[in-house]
Amino acid sequence: MISSRAQVTEMIAAAKVRKGLKWADVAKEVGLSKEWTTAGCLGQMTFDKKQAEIVGKLFDLPDEAVAWLQIVPYKGSLPTAIPTDPLIYRWYEIVNVYGTTIKELIHEEFGDGIMSAIDFSMDIQRESDPKGDRVHVVLSGKFLPYKTY
Amino acid sequence: MISSRAQVTEMIAAAKVRKGLKWADVAKEVGLSKEWTTAGCLGQMTFDKKQAEIVGKLFDLPDEAVAWLQIVPYKGSLPTAIPTDPLIYRWYEIVNVYGTTIKELIHEEFGDGIMSAIDFSMDIQRESDPKGDRVHVVLSGKFLPYKTY
Amino acid sequence: MISSRAQVTEMIAAAKVRKGLKWADVAKEVGLSKEWTTAGCLGQMTFDKKQAEIVGKLFDLPDEAVAWLQIVPYKGSLPTAIPTDPLIYRWYEIVNVYGTTIKELIHEEFGDGIMSAIDFSMDIQRESDPKGDRVHVVLSGKFLPYKTY
Amino acid sequence: MISSRAQVTEMIAAAKVRKGLKWADVAKEVGLSKEWTTAGCLGQMTFDKKQAEIVGKLFDLPDEAVAWLQIVPYKGSLPTAIPTDPLIYRWYEIVNVYGTTIKELIHEEFGDGIMSAIDFSMDIQRESDPKGDRVHVVLSGKFLPYKTY
Amino acid sequence: MISSRAQVTEMIAAAKVRKGLKWADVAKEVGLSKEWTTAGCLGQMTFDKKQAEIVGKLFDLPDEAVAWLQIVPYKGSLPTAIPTDPLIYRWYEIVNVYGTTIKELIHEEFGDGIMSAIDFSMDIQRESDPKGDRVHVVLSGKFLPYKTY
Amino acid sequence: MISSRAQVTEMIAAAKVRKGLKWADVAKEVGLSKEWTTAGCLGQMTFDKKQAEIVGKLFDLPDEAVAWLQIVPYKGSLPTAIPTDPLIYRWYEIVNVYGTTIKELIHEEFGDGIMSAIDFSMDIQRESDPKGDRVHVVLSGKFLPYKTY
Amino acid sequence: MISSRAQVTEMIAAAKVRKGLKWADVAKEVGLSKEWTTAGCLGQMTFDKKQAEIVGKLFDLPDEAVAWLQIVPYKGSLPTAIPTDPLIYRWYEIVNVYGTTIKELIHEEFGDGIMSAIDFSMDIQRESDPKGDRVHVVLSGKFLPYKTY
Amino acid sequence: MISSRAQVTEMIAAAKVRKGLKWADVAKEVGLSKEWTTAGCLGQMTFDKKQAEIVGKLFDLPDEAVAWLQIVPYKGSLPTAIPTDPLIYRWYEIVNVYGTTIKELIHEEFGDGIMSAIDFSMDIQRESDPKGDRVHVVLSGKFLPYKTY
Amino acid sequence: MISSRAQVTEMIAAAKVRKGLKWADVAKEVGLSKEWTTAGCLGQMTFDKKQAEIVGKLFDLPDEAVAWLQIVPYKGSLPTAIPTDPLIYRWYEIVNVYGTTIKELIHEEFGDGIMSAIDFSMDIQRESDPKGDRVHVVLSGKFLPYKTY
Amino acid sequence: MISSRAQVTEMIAAAKVRKGLKWADVAKEVGLSKEWTTAGCLGQMTFDKKQAEIVGKLFDLPDEAVAWLQIVPYKGSLPTAIPTDPLIYRWYEIVNVYGTTIKELIHEEFGDGIMSAIDFSMDIQRESDPKGDRVHVVLSGKFLPYKTY
Repeated sequence: MISSRAQVTEMIAAAKVRKGLKWADVAKEVGLSKEWTTAGCLGQMTFDKKQAEIVGKLFDLPDEAVAWLQIVPYKGSLPTAIPTDPLIYRWYEIVNVYGTTIKELIHEEFGDGIMSAIDFSMDIQRESDPKGDRVHVVLSGKFLPYKTY
Repeated sequence: MISSRAQVTEMIAAAKVRKGLKWADVAKEVGLSKEWTTAGCLGQMTFDKKQAEIVGKLFDLPDEAVAWLQIVPYKGSLPTAIPTDPLIYRWYEIVNVYGTTIKELIHEEFGDGIMSAIDFSMDIQRESDPKGDRVHVVLSGKFLPYKTY
Repeated sequence: MISSRAQVTEMIAAAKVRKGLKWADVAKEVGLSKEWTTAGCLGQMTFDKKQAEIVGKLFDLPDEAVAWLQIVPYKGSLPTAIPTDPLIYRWYEIVNVYGTTIKELIHEEFGDGIMSAIDFSMDIQRESDPKGDRVHVVLSGKFLPYKTY
Repeated sequence: MISSRAQVTEMIAAAKVRKGLKWADVAKEVGLSKEWTTAGCLGQMTFDKKQAEIVGKLFDLPDEAVAWLQIVPYKGSLPTAIPTDPLIYRWYEIVNVYGTTIKELIHEEFGDGIMSAIDFSMDIQRESDPKGDRVHVVLSGKFLPYKTY
Repeated sequence: MISSRAQVTEMIAAAKVRKGLKWADVAKEVGLSKEWTTAGCLGQMTFDKKQAEIVGKLFDLPDEAVAWLQIVPYKGSLPTAIPTDPLIYRWYEIVNVYGTTIKELIHEEFGDGIMSAIDFSMDIQRESDPKGDRVHVVLSGKFLPYKTY
Repeated sequence: MISSRAQVTEMIAAAKVRKGLKWADVAKEVGLSKEWTTAGCLGQMTFDKKQAEIVGKLFDLPDEAVAWLQIVPYKGSLPTAIPTDPLIYRWYEIVNVYGTTIKELIHEEFGDGIMSAIDFSMDIQRESDPKGDRVHVVLSGKFLPYKTY
Repeated sequence: MISSRAQVTEMIAAAKVRKGLKWADVAKEVGLSKEWTTAGCLGQMTFDKKQAEIVGKLFDLPDEAVAWLQIVPYKGSLPTAIPTDPLIYRWYEIVNVYGTTIKELIHEEFGDGIMSAIDFSMDIQRESDPKGDRVHVVLSGKFLPYKTY
Repeated sequence: MISSRAQVTEMIAAAKVRKGLKWADVAKEVGLSKEWTTAGCLGQMTFDKKQAEIVGKLFDLPDEAVAWLQIVPYKGSLPTAIPTDPLIYRWYEIVNVYGTTIKELIHEEFGDGIMSAIDFSMDIQRESDPKGDRVHVVLSGKFLPYKTY
Repeated sequence: MISSRAQVTEMIAAAKVRKGLKWADVAKEVGLSKEWTTAGCLGQMTFDKKQAEIVGKLFDLPDEAVAWLQIVPYKGSLPTAIPTDPLIYRWYEIVNVYGTTIKELIHEEFGDGIMSAIDFSMDIQRESDPKGDRVHVVLSGKFLPYKTY
Repeated sequence: MISSRAQVTEMIAAAKVRKGLKWADVAKEVGLSKEWTTAGCLGQMTFDKKQAEIVGKLFDLPDEAVAWLQIVPYKGSLPTAIPTDPLIYRWYEIVNVYGTTIKELIHEEFGDGIMSAIDFSMDIQRESDPKGDRVHVVLSGKFLPYKTY
C-alpha cells in the first residue's frame, strides 16, 4: 500500500542508484528541463499521465506509484527548517545575508509585490572559469504586484 | 556612542527615506554593482575607506559611523530564521522546494562540493514579458570541491 | 530619527487611541477598503503619496513618517510564529485543521498551483444570525498554476 | 491492529489514488459539503455511523477503520508549525500579514471576542475571471464575545 | 506617547507595588470578580469606560492610559511558549499530562467539540485542609459542538 | 517485545475502539475516578497490580502489557509543546491568557509557592445551562509554599 | 518608575560590583543560607519586610525597590531554554544525561511521584581533594507521591 | 542487526519489566553504584567487557548487544530539550530557577571555571523525615578552572 | 531496497561493532586520513569506486550499499541543532563562547571573508601531557575573501 | 549604572572602532595570547585586576567598567543558537558535519570521555599557501575521562 508521495520518492532514489541513471537523461526522456524533472522526481512537482509513465518505466515503478506521481504532492524537500547540508545551506545563507538587499532592489525597480516562486523557472549551468569553474544559475520569476482594493 | 553596525544601518535607513535616495544611484557613486552596494549599506558587507566616505557623505553619517562601515559586520539580515516577509519568503520557499533538486544537479555536474556564497555575485534585472514583467536573477558562485585528505 | 516602519505604526496606534478614530472612517478618507487601509496603517502595505498624506493628517504624523508610509515595509504583523492572541489563533487553527483540506480541494478544482496571497483581497462583514451574529469573510486570491518548463 | 486515526487517513489516501476517487463525489455520497467531508476523510472531523459506513465502502476500509472514523480525532493536519507547502503557506502568510488587521476590524465591529473556528463553515469555489480564474473562499464563524463575570 | 497596552500594564504593575493595592480590593471597586478584573489589569481583557476610569483612579493612570484600557488588547501573558515560572508551569504540566484525558472525557460526554475559553469563567478559592490548604479552582466553559455542514 | 509504555497505550486505544468501551465504565471497574483512570490508561499514571489486571482484562492485554501498566511511565501526553488539537489548545490558551492572573491571585491568597500538580485532583462534569450546556471542571491542588532555609 | 523585579535585580547586580559585596556576607546579614539569599537577590525568591530592608540597605536600593523585593517574582533566571553559559550548561547536561536515571532510581525507592523543587533546599560547598578540589552539592527535596482519586 | 545503542536500551527496558529486575540489584551484580549502573543500562555510559557480560546475562541480551554495551554511546536521554516528565522537569526547573545562583556561588568560592559533569558522581538516597520523606541527592563534580594562556 | 545513505551508515555501524573494526585501520586500507575516512563511513563524504569497494569489503556491505557510498550524501550528522552528547557539545560550546573571537581574529588578519569548511582538513592527535593527556586538533581551512563586484 | 558585562562589551566595541585598536596589540599590552584576550574583551573571560586596568586604559573605560571586567561573565557570544554569520556558521557546520567523526576518533584513542572546553587553548595563524592562504587553527583540550563510581 502506497499512502504518500514520499514512498514513491524513496523508490525513485533507490532505483536511481541501483540503475545508475542521470537526472539529465531522465529529463530528456520526459521532455522537460532537468530542473523541473528532478524536482518532480524528488516529490515536488506533479507529472501528467504520459510523463508519469515515462518516469515509471525508467525507475521500474509499480502502477500505484505511477498514479501517485500524478497527484499534487505536499511540498517542501528539507528535513529541517534551517538546512544542515552545506550545499543547500549556502543557498539559505544567500537568502539570509542578501534577503533585505533582494527585497530593496526588487521594490526599487517594481514597487511593492513579490517575485513569484510558482510562475518561476530555474536554470543551472556550469560556467567555465580559469580561476575555477562556477555554478551559474538563472532564476526567473514573474513579478506580482500588491494592488489596492 | 556607536557600538554596533546595526546602529549605522538604522542611520542609513533613516537618511535614505528622508533624502529620497535610490540604491542604484548610491551604487553608481560608490562605483560597484547595486547588489553589493545595497548589501553593504544594509550591514552585510565591508567598505574600504574611500567607499565608506562616499557612503557617509551620501547619507550624512558622522565620522564614527564611517569608521564602522569599514569594520566587518556580524552578517545575517533577517529577524527570524524563517522570514515572514512575503518577498523574502518566496526565496526561502525556493530553497525549501528546490533545495534537494539544486543539490542533485550541482553534484551531477561537478561531483561533491558546494556553490560558494562568498566567491559569489548576484545580478537582479527586470525582464520584459508581455504576460507580465519578470524578475531575472543571475547567481554565480564558484564551485568548491570537497577533497580527500 | 525614524529608522523603521515599526516606529510609524506605533505613532499611528498611539494617535488612534488618543483621537478615538475608527478604521472604517480612515478607509473612507483614504478611499479604499477598510481591510487594505487597516493593513497599511498597521505597517503591511505601501501607500502612495496622496494616501500617505491623508493618513498623516488623520494621525498627526510628522513629514518623516509620511515619507516612511510610502516605503515598502518588511511584512509580518505577529510577534510569534504561532499567535497567542485568541482571535488570531483561531485563524491559525483554521489553517492547521483545514490546511490539507484546502489544499486537496483547490488542487481538485484547479490542478497544481496556489491561491495567491498577493493578487488577493479580503472582505470582512457582520452576518446577522438569530442564533448569534457571525463574522463573514470573503477571501479572493488568483489561482497561480505551476507550469512545466 | 489500528491504534490511531492517522492509520485510517493513510488507508483513505492510498485508496483514493488507487481508485481515482474525487472529494466532491465522496461528499455527494456522504451528503455533506465537500469541505467538511474532505476534512473528515483527512482525519479532522468525526463521522456518524451512517456516514462512516459510506466512507468505508467508498474507500474499501475494514470494519475497524470504520469504527475509528466515528472517534473524535486528535486534530491538526500539518507536519510543521509553519507549513512548508506553498499552497498552505500562503494561508499562513495571510494570517501573518493580515492577522492584526483582521483583529482590529472584527473588534471594531463586534467588540472584544473571537470568530469561532468551531461554529464555523468554509466554502471554496472557482471564480471565473478574464485575467485568470480566482479561488473564492467564504469563511463564516460565529462571533463569540468575551463577557465580564 | 503610549503606543501599546503593555505600557499601561507596566504602569499598573508599578503603581500596585508602590501603593500596596490588592487585586481583590480592585475587583470590589470595579464590581466584577477578582479573576476577570486581574486579567484586565494585566492586559488581557477590555474595560468599559466606567470600569476603566475606576482602574485609572486606583492606579493613578493618565487619561491616555485610561483610553487604552478600553481598547481590545493583543492577548497572551507569557514571555515564553513554555512558561518558566513554577506556579504557571504546573498549569502547563496539567495540560500536558492530562491533555489527552481531558479531551477523551469531554468527547465521551459531549461528542466532538471544545470547551470554550471565551464563554468562560474561572474562580480561585482557598480550600481548608488539615493536611495543608489547597487551591480550589472552578473552570466553567460552554461546550461548543463541531457541526456538519 | 514491549519496550515502552507507549506501546501499551496504543494497544489500549485500539482495543477501546474495537470493543466500544467507555472510560466511565472502565473507571467503575477499576474503582477510581474517571479522570485518574483515563490518565492511567493513556499512559500517564501507574496502576497497582490489581488495577492493572482489571485494565488488562477489559482491554484484552497480554501479561507483558499488564506488567508495564505497573511501571511509572515517562509522562507528557502531547506530541507538540503547543498543542494543535482545538480542545486541548483552549486549555493551553487559558494558561497563556490567564497565567499571570492565576499567579497573582494565588500569591495574594497564599504567598510565594505553587499549586501542586502532583497532590492534585480533577473532576470534569456536564453543567446544564439553558443557553447551552457547559463543561464544569474542578481542579484541586495542594498549596506548596516556598520556604526560606 | 519600577515596573518589574528584573529592574531591581539589575540594580543589585550593579551595586554588588560597585561596592564589592560578597553573597556569603549578604546572606549572613539577612540571616539565611547563601543559596536562598542569592536566589532572592537574583530575582527568584520573595523577601519579607525585614529581609528586604536589609538587602535594600546593603545594595543602596530606593524604597520602591525594597517594596518590589517583597513581591513574588516571575521566576526563571536563564535567557535561553538551553543555557549557553558553560557552568550552567553542565547542570543542564546532568539533567539530560542522567535524567532518566534519576527518574528510575527515585521511582524504584519511592514509587510514582516527584522530588519537590519547592519544598527544597540546596547546599553548595568546597570539597578538598588532592586531585583538585570539588564542588559538593546537596539537594534535598520532599518526595511528593502521585495519589489515586 | 543492531545498529545503535538505543536498540540495546530498548531490549534492557523490555527485559527489566518482563523479569521484574531492580536497578539496585543489577548494580550489586555489576559491582558499581546504582547511579552509574542505571545510567549505563539506559544508554549513557560505557561498560567494560566484564561488566557488559554481567549486564547481558541479567537482561538475556544477545552477544551483539553485549558488544554494543562496550561502545561509547551518543549521550542524552531526553526526547525533548525541555523535559515533559514532571519528575525530570523539576530538575530542569531547579537549573532554571537556581542557575544563576549556582553560578554566582561557585564563582565566589572558586573563581572562573565550571563544576565538571564528567569527573562527576551522584548519590541518591531516601532521607527520613517526619513531615514526609525526602530525596537526598549528593552531586560531586571536580572544579575545573578557566586558565589564561 | 536501500533508499538513503542513512541505511548504509547503519549497516556500517552494525558491522563495525560486530567485527570489532577500528577507524584507524579502515583508513589505512582506504589510504586516506582517519578523519576523512571516518566522516565518509558515517555518511558525510563521498567515496570513489575503489574506496567504496574497500569499505564494502571491510564492512561486508551488499553491492547496493557500495553504490550508495559513491553518491553525494545529504550532510549533517547530528540529531538535534544543539548536540546533547557531551563530547560534541563541548565543540558547540567552543563555537558559542569563542565564535565572535574567532571572527574578530580572522578578520583582523585576513579582512572580510571566511575560513572554508569545504577546502578544509582536520587532524586529531593525542598530545602527551604529564598533567593529563590532551586532544590536539589542527584545523586548516582556506581563507575565502568576500570580493566587491 | 552598569548592570551587566554586555554593557562593557559594547563600550569596548565602540572604543575599538573609534580608536582603531587591534586585538593583537591589546593582547601584547595585556601580556596574554590574542585568542584569550579577545575573548575576554568580548565578554567571555574574566580579567584579574591588573589586566582589567590595562584593558580599561586602552579602551578609555570608566572605573565601574573595569570592576565588571573582573566579574565572571554569563558566557555565550552568539545571538542565535545556529549562527547566521557565515564565518561563524562554517565552524558550526564543521561541528555538524564532523561531529560524529570527532566523537568516534577521540573515543577510539582515549575511551569514553570528552575534550575539555575549559582546560583548553586555541591558536589561530595564517598559513601561507600558493593556492591561497589558509587559516590554521590549533585547538588543545585536556581529555577528561568518564570514570565508574
